[in-house]
Amino acid sequence: MKIGIVGGTGDIGEGMAMRLAPLYDVIVGSREQEKARASCECSIQTLQKRGTECSLVGVSNQAAVDDGDIIILAIPFRNLVATLSGLNGFEDKVVVSPINPMEKRDFFVFVPPPEGSAALLVQQMLPKSARVCSAFNTKEIAYSVPVCSDDTKAKQQVMEIVDHVSKLQAYDAGPLAVSAMVESLTPLLLNIARYNRMRDVGIQFK
Amino acid sequence: MKIGIVGGTGDIGEGMAMRLAPLYDVIVGSREQEKARASCECSIQTLQKRGTECSLVGVSNQAAVDDGDIIILAIPFRNLVATLSGLNGFEDKVVVSPINPMEKRDFFVFVPPPEGSAALLVQQMLPKSARVCSAFNTKEIAYSVPVCSDDTKAKQQVMEIVDHVSKLQAYDAGPLAVSAMVESLTPLLLNIARYNRMRDVGIQFK
Repeated sequence: MKIGIVGGTGDIGEGMAMRLAPLYDVIVGSREQEKARASCECSIQTLQKRGTECSLVGVSNQAAVDDGDIIILAIPFRNLVATLSGLNGFEDKVVVSPINPMEKRDFFVFVPPPEGSAALLVQQMLPKSARVCSAFNTKEIAYSVPVCSDDTKAKQQVMEIVDHVSKLQAYDAGPLAVSAMVESLTPLLLNIARYNRMRDVGIQFK
Repeated sequence: MKIGIVGGTGDIGEGMAMRLAPLYDVIVGSREQEKARASCECSIQTLQKRGTECSLVGVSNQAAVDDGDIIILAIPFRNLVATLSGLNGFEDKVVVSPINPMEKRDFFVFVPPPEGSAALLVQQMLPKSARVCSAFNTKEIAYSVPVCSDDTKAKQQVMEIVDHVSKLQAYDAGPLAVSAMVESLTPLLLNIARYNRMRDVGIQFK
């Protein structure tokens, strides 16, 4: 199974690529293909030093969509509409949104789009056959990863990927209609880190 | 320090009274004073069987407000406006909202009022000198309890109460402006319990 990461050279995308590449064929996309190649080389070297074999190639965002079976949209919310508008070929693909629409004011605030959540906006922008899930919203610092989707099989597939990544455990959080409740976890955790002087704050359901 | 619980005979209120009564003077309010007295007698007996001394009295909701230093609004969101409209005397009191505006459809959904959250609605309805906090939103099954308030001292006081309750740890989650992110945790956890066939789901920040 091939995982394509749109925006795979950003902070979020690079972290996900490093996590997933030892387990799956990972295709890192970027607006600049050269940047994706360089990022992959760097990640491969880092993983090799740890004695970890991996499968990682750097391509354009469009090639990541074309070649991936599962596409992760590792892009900031502010770039979401522009990036998705410039890409096509999402038909029948599993598309994962780890995107959190939030703003940093004096503190972090969840600011969803009129659609209700980033994942619902993604669903509205993509062809109907795209199988949209929200997952990985709390990034690699999370212990428990809630996953939302209206497509049961796509959700199952994404939950399996989450469970394969060490330290992470997937939880079915329901349909895409409640993805706002998952997306708002990240600004909550960022505020908790800030106000309680913690470095990274993860979340665990128990 | 006296803690007054408005709606102290409901499911949420009774659980909180049981938890707090071994540690603080707890005043349980109800629309019907007789119901509050009966509920307290039952709770006292249960705690005595466990060998736990407690301070618990049953009164009217208004008396719970009048006699409490800290007031917990243990009422469902749908009764919030009607209940608060019928009470007065909140001036200078610390008022805790554990209220989660949510609806049960096929799944649980966070449905905040136009003010943004139940806690912000409480703040708007009460006199300006009331020191509103949101806390205990995830009820007694929680391990980590995020607390929001614009009043630093009130927040500190409420966090100390949370920390005194065994198994609970308070986290400063920021100002009341972000209380929606805390209130939406409960429907999220209820969905996770449901879809993953778990009995109770608590949350832990780590």
